[in-house]
Amino acid sequence: MSNFEARNLTEGLNGVLGFRLIDWSDCFAQIEVGLDDRHKNRQGGLHGGVTATLIDATTGFCGVFEPVPGKRRGNVTVSLTTNFVGRAKTAKIICTAKTVRSGRRIYFASAEVHDSDGNLVATAEAVYAYVDRDAQRLPSSS
Amino acid sequence: MSNFEARNLTEGLNGVLGFRLIDWSDCFAQIEVGLDDRHKNRQGGLHGGVTATLIDATTGFCGVFEPVPGKRRGNVTVSLTTNFVGRAKTAKIICTAKTVRSGRRIYFASAEVHDSDGNLVATAEAVYAYVDRDAQRLPSSS
Amino acid sequence: MSNFEARNLTEGLNGVLGFRLIDWSDCFAQIEVGLDDRHKNRQGGLHGGVTATLIDATTGFCGVFEPVPGKRRGNVTVSLTTNFVGRAKTAKIICTAKTVRSGRRIYFASAEVHDSDGNLVATAEAVYAYVDRDAQRLPSSS
Amino acid sequence: MSNFEARNLTEGLNGVLGFRLIDWSDCFAQIEVGLDDRHKNRQGGLHGGVTATLIDATTGFCGVFEPVPGKRRGNVTVSLTTNFVGRAKTAKIICTAKTVRSGRRIYFASAEVHDSDGNLVATAEAVYAYVDRDAQRLPSSS
Repeated sequence: MSNFEARNLTEGLNGVLGFRLIDWSDCFAQIEVGLDDRHKNRQGGLHGGVTATLIDATTGFCGVFEPVPGKRRGNVTVSLTTNFVGRAKTAKIICTAKTVRSGRRIYFASAEVHDSDGNLVATAEAVYAYVDRDAQRLPSSS
Repeated sequence: MSNFEARNLTEGLNGVLGFRLIDWSDCFAQIEVGLDDRHKNRQGGLHGGVTATLIDATTGFCGVFEPVPGKRRGNVTVSLTTNFVGRAKTAKIICTAKTVRSGRRIYFASAEVHDSDGNLVATAEAVYAYVDRDAQRLPSSS
Repeated sequence: MSNFEARNLTEGLNGVLGFRLIDWSDCFAQIEVGLDDRHKNRQGGLHGGVTATLIDATTGFCGVFEPVPGKRRGNVTVSLTTNFVGRAKTAKIICTAKTVRSGRRIYFASAEVHDSDGNLVATAEAVYAYVDRDAQRLPSSS
Repeated sequence: MSNFEARNLTEGLNGVLGFRLIDWSDCFAQIEVGLDDRHKNRQGGLHGGVTATLIDATTGFCGVFEPVPGKRRGNVTVSLTTNFVGRAKTAKIICTAKTVRSGRRIYFASAEVHDSDGNLVATAEAVYAYVDRDAQRLPSSS
């Protein structure tokens, strides 16, 4: 186990959904989230988009570990496949992601989502491209 | 064009993210979303999870069209693949999904996300299983 | 319809499986194959690998059209997702692929496989990287 | 290690490509293949279709282990995603697949392909449906 200090993610969608980064090291990341009404689909179950977003966030972190605060390498998702293999039976889910292989321009990551009893909820594969961090601002609404 | 009356989705994550169902008919659905701070990743760009959630919501609707209010068929995502092919250049994105094939127990859907200038942002393929609608409530936190 | 002259593909696996390139232009390709014992799985049905290989071949062609013989741009598959949506009901299947978006280093392609009666057999999404054509020889067995 | 006796697969595409089933038990399978001209793409490298076919065969076996010869459960691939993470540096590749979760009607499998030096070549996720084994014969050409 690393000596990483867990922290809540506060920016953008990660903050809206209450994501908490609980471990982060080179080629590895873990994010957990406590489930409530924000995370529901219209049938009252866990929205598949929560799972996909959690995986995207975690696989995004695992490929660009930066021990030095304020100095970050950028990345964009190229492709993300999620298989929804089972239902969460607890009110917290945890995503564990690792970098499978990284090249100069792209990296591959795998991830699994479990509930807090260890039941497998989803498996995923992702491809990312490294980019200049300032190159991808969201268009302004105004 | 159908005579569907557009409506804001208010439940759970769809409501949190401001999704608006703008068209819905048998095997077809369209959802749009105006982008703001809620939808950002930590680099200030569009969070891949927004795109994936938008696709999951839209492909979820397209497979279970119900003209009769209050009578809904349930479904769960089995597999979702999203390819992030380009950047949104406007502050609104629209997902268009169609059911490619449906059987008794599962259906396949394809989707595309464009920005409001028609630039392609993402393509996706999804597999869903039909389920009893009451079978999948989110575990309670309390 | 282009004035492309159809030709049998004779090299490697494409030749082993009897693939025939029936159309090829910028960002577009079509390959067909007549099905026989070579293409079966152990249950006597169409091997999913045939469909995946046909898609990989066709999406591979569509991204690197070269009107000038002998001058070819190389590419490698980065990610391939195939959804097997229905059964072939005829003894010939045809894959149609188009380039959805291409950048300097990677391109995205979509594909559909139909049987010769027009029944949809599979849908697919692929990501490719452009490479130097001489950079990827198969290791020799000897 | 199980006491499974390795055997060459002789039917259909698995036989054409020289696949050899080297381990098979409940929820687990391994298939290897020695690479030669049959497995090449038109650039002389390993055809992505070989990798995808190898994965499809192996994930197909891992979900339907049958210790009793002649009594087989059928299955069809629903969705297959392959990420091509690296090049094979030896002339043999081995796919290892495990069933991640199985229900009454579908199962999920994950797979990895390595070369014989242990270099990772591909990762994959698959969804299968169980079917009646006699229900999916290939259409006859005659």
